Amino acid sequence: MPESRRPVAFADIDTWDLEADVVIAGHGIAGVSAAIEAARAGAEVLILDRAGGWGGAAALSGGWIYLGGGTPLQRALGFEDSAENMETFMTAALGPGVDGGKIHAYAHGSLEHYDWLTGCGVVFKEEFWGEPGWEVPHDEGLGYSGGENASPFREIATPAPRGHIPQMTDKRTGVRGAGYMLMKPLVETAETLGVRAEYDTRAQRLVTAADGTVEGLVARRFGTDVRVRARRGVVLATGSFAYNAEMIEAYAPRLIGRPAAAIEEHDGAGILMAQAAGAALAHMDATEVAFFGDPQMMARGILVNGRGQRFIAEDTYGGRIGQAVLIQQDNAAYLVMDMDAHEEALGTETSTPYFRQPPTWAAETVAELESDMGLPAGTLTATVDAYNRHAADGADPVLHKKAQWLRPLSGPVAAWDMRGFTAGFTLGGLRTDVDSRVLHVDGAPIPGLFAAGRCTSGVCAGGYASGTSLGDGSFFGRRAGVSAASG
Amino acid sequence: MPESRRPVAFADIDTWDLEADVVIAGHGIAGVSAAIEAARAGAEVLILDRAGGWGGAAALSGGWIYLGGGTPLQRALGFEDSAENMETFMTAALGPGVDGGKIHAYAHGSLEHYDWLTGCGVVFKEEFWGEPGWEVPHDEGLGYSGGENASPFREIATPAPRGHIPQMTDKRTGVRGAGYMLMKPLVETAETLGVRAEYDTRAQRLVTAADGTVEGLVARRFGTDVRVRARRGVVLATGSFAYNAEMIEAYAPRLIGRPAAAIEEHDGAGILMAQAAGAALAHMDATEVAFFGDPQMMARGILVNGRGQRFIAEDTYGGRIGQAVLIQQDNAAYLVMDMDAHEEALGTETSTPYFRQPPTWAAETVAELESDMGLPAGTLTATVDAYNRHAADGADPVLHKKAQWLRPLSGPVAAWDMRGFTAGFTLGGLRTDVDSRVLHVDGAPIPGLFAAGRCTSGVCAGGYASGTSLGDGSFFGRRAGVSAASG
Repeated sequence: MPESRRPVAFADIDTWDLEADVVIAGHGIAGVSAAIEAARAGAEVLILDRAGGWGGAAALSGGWIYLGGGTPLQRALGFEDSAENMETFMTAALGPGVDGGKIHAYAHGSLEHYDWLTGCGVVFKEEFWGEPGWEVPHDEGLGYSGGENASPFREIATPAPRGHIPQMTDKRTGVRGAGYMLMKPLVETAETLGVRAEYDTRAQRLVTAADGTVEGLVARRFGTDVRVRARRGVVLATGSFAYNAEMIEAYAPRLIGRPAAAIEEHDGAGILMAQAAGAALAHMDATEVAFFGDPQMMARGILVNGRGQRFIAEDTYGGRIGQAVLIQQDNAAYLVMDMDAHEEALGTETSTPYFRQPPTWAAETVAELESDMGLPAGTLTATVDAYNRHAADGADPVLHKKAQWLRPLSGPVAAWDMRGFTAGFTLGGLRTDVDSRVLHVDGAPIPGLFAAGRCTSGVCAGGYASGTSLGDGSFFGRRAGVSAASG
Repeated sequence: MPESRRPVAFADIDTWDLEADVVIAGHGIAGVSAAIEAARAGAEVLILDRAGGWGGAAALSGGWIYLGGGTPLQRALGFEDSAENMETFMTAALGPGVDGGKIHAYAHGSLEHYDWLTGCGVVFKEEFWGEPGWEVPHDEGLGYSGGENASPFREIATPAPRGHIPQMTDKRTGVRGAGYMLMKPLVETAETLGVRAEYDTRAQRLVTAADGTVEGLVARRFGTDVRVRARRGVVLATGSFAYNAEMIEAYAPRLIGRPAAAIEEHDGAGILMAQAAGAALAHMDATEVAFFGDPQMMARGILVNGRGQRFIAEDTYGGRIGQAVLIQQDNAAYLVMDMDAHEEALGTETSTPYFRQPPTWAAETVAELESDMGLPAGTLTATVDAYNRHAADGADPVLHKKAQWLRPLSGPVAAWDMRGFTAGFTLGGLRTDVDSRVLHVDGAPIPGLFAAGRCTSGVCAGGYASGTSLGDGSFFGRRAGVSAASG
């Protein structure tokens, strides 16, 4: 029997176990960002986390944070960008159904947000990584992370890399990854500001007054209820619902059995306790989708679906490939390369060497390969014929892969079976306004309740770019802190 | 400013304007079915509808109702079916993420439900329509409505037609369509049982006791609040949210600007007022998608996407084609036929003659057509080559269209531009159990609150078959009535 999420009546609570002006559930990227801003606004701040320490999914992540509009790092590395250009890309890439107000605020606030992060001690190394990859192979500070320089987006907005990666202290051991190096200075900033934290403390239910105002929450610590008074506001920053099996089945069933880049603490608790107070939701089906392919290989090959047809520019962001495979191609994909391209790919640097497995099939001709793969005669061969015909002219009129990756397949060929090579986390959640106030289904904010991060629907309504989760978690986390502190 | 959906406190209401044991919001298929069963269980029943009379979207619909498992009509027309076979098909076709309990109950209760409908006076004419079509051209009583006899489902379950169509009295005038002929005997049955109805009365907010039990609702009639006491239970049967622009943008953005087969009264009100009481949701992104193509033409041609690739068996249910086009093919599709096939199609009967428009392009060869359509060289030609090669052998190993429709394209060819030819309605909504009790986000039923029809998530989690809306609306509407009457 699941624990109740129903609000507890304020009038029924006589004594409080903990008190603060602003109480934050979740000590990941959104929570710590809210804490810093609330403390700077003069509020006494308490963060609760159900885990034994701070970090959330953020500290374990790749650390990419989506920033642009001409950040000092972008400019130092020779890239032009503007808030308008960033807004155009995000609107095109993160929909359909984006929250235009949030994207506008995010793009136009990005320079200030960069300064805020570096002001808190986050360091971005002045080096650019321009090769295809899920992450940077060393400690480079900037890279493409959303297909900005691939079709169709390079025709819609001026390409600019916006994936900002905090510098790692020891990439080889993996102990101090970029996500940790993003979180650590923020947590230290919060501590310096007097923010308190309580761990092993799991927020369970909101406490609401008769008029619906949120006055605190009830948490659970080692089997005991902990009543926590929030004099000014509660901020929910509890993460996604990737590990709530029932919610996944009800809202995002394509992810059943394939959660990734989330932590088991992501059980949807924050969403549920706000829903029980009448909160509205948005885009509950949206998911980030990782794809277990090496970008250096994919860009040099062709990806085909279960009918042997190409379906996406192979040089785009891997997360877009993942979404296309899972949602549009029934989770079926094959990578096809000739031996020269394969050899060239193997000679490149990559952050995902474990995706460089031996091929599933190898053959002397495409027709043999097609037959070995069990594809109907004339399908893969037709795809390769059309690809080769145009690649010889340095063109890809079908999917507009960049000319640098185009070369006709020739000689012996190989294919990789990548069916089911997807996993991901959820992007939908509570509906919030641009000031991170949780909206009631009526449309008005629920007094005293704020939220940010993956328990909310943020800048991603459907599409995704790496760095937008840490990006909107921190950006709108800050706004949650400001709003909560002003009570 | 939208009207509030927050529950009104039971304690704050001194006098009631209307009273009944069971109060039903919405006089469409779900509402009238609930009313009949509640009245038969001995309850005093009152139905409210915001329109000026009964009918809802059901009375204006094509009237298909999804029934099977070996109904008397199926058997009389020579079709074998079983509850297990029906359950297998529905599980495969209506997901991913189907509510297995609901589908099991629906399939295994279908024979009894058929008897219930005919017992109420619904008439199904003993005649089968076997040609491709959105509706039957005359007053036939049975037809395929979900791709049961097309790939991939014909390989998963034994094909059986389950679209049952109430007999029309005057098809030519259209005044007495099948939807009307389904609703009319049900409304008359309800009236005979003493069910009362109030029109121009728009349910706005639930009335809840301090413990969360639903005790009634507040409606709006000509600008005045009407307080309605429900002694045993409230049934929400208010229809979809296809016409709530804000909800469409937040949950099902691909349908922005393209609602269809719904009525403007479908504003999501029932969903919102239950959400405000803590109700859980499911599959809010799921949508039925109609496609403005003539099935007689599509089965005889090939459908290609924006890259000139085939993507679906052209002889399947048009609603599956619509979903594939909108969700998987970026809303782009072209129909390609040779002149012989076109001429043959024009000689067939259809219920959608208005979809038989002249072609957008016509050419002497496929290569010319490809060029005229602006498709990259070697794309459509490769598709037609592969299709022709296998069609000559009576096979379609790529998409498994049935042999009867396979013939190589030859001679002059034509193409129809069908980009954006989609529209639909929403399938997501309140989460209910198999007894039509509305579930709180906690997982437990909300006492006194029941729901059915398109304001709930029913048997369709993702896929769709014609007849499942009137089907689960009536089937689970009945259960809502039984549950509400038992208080």
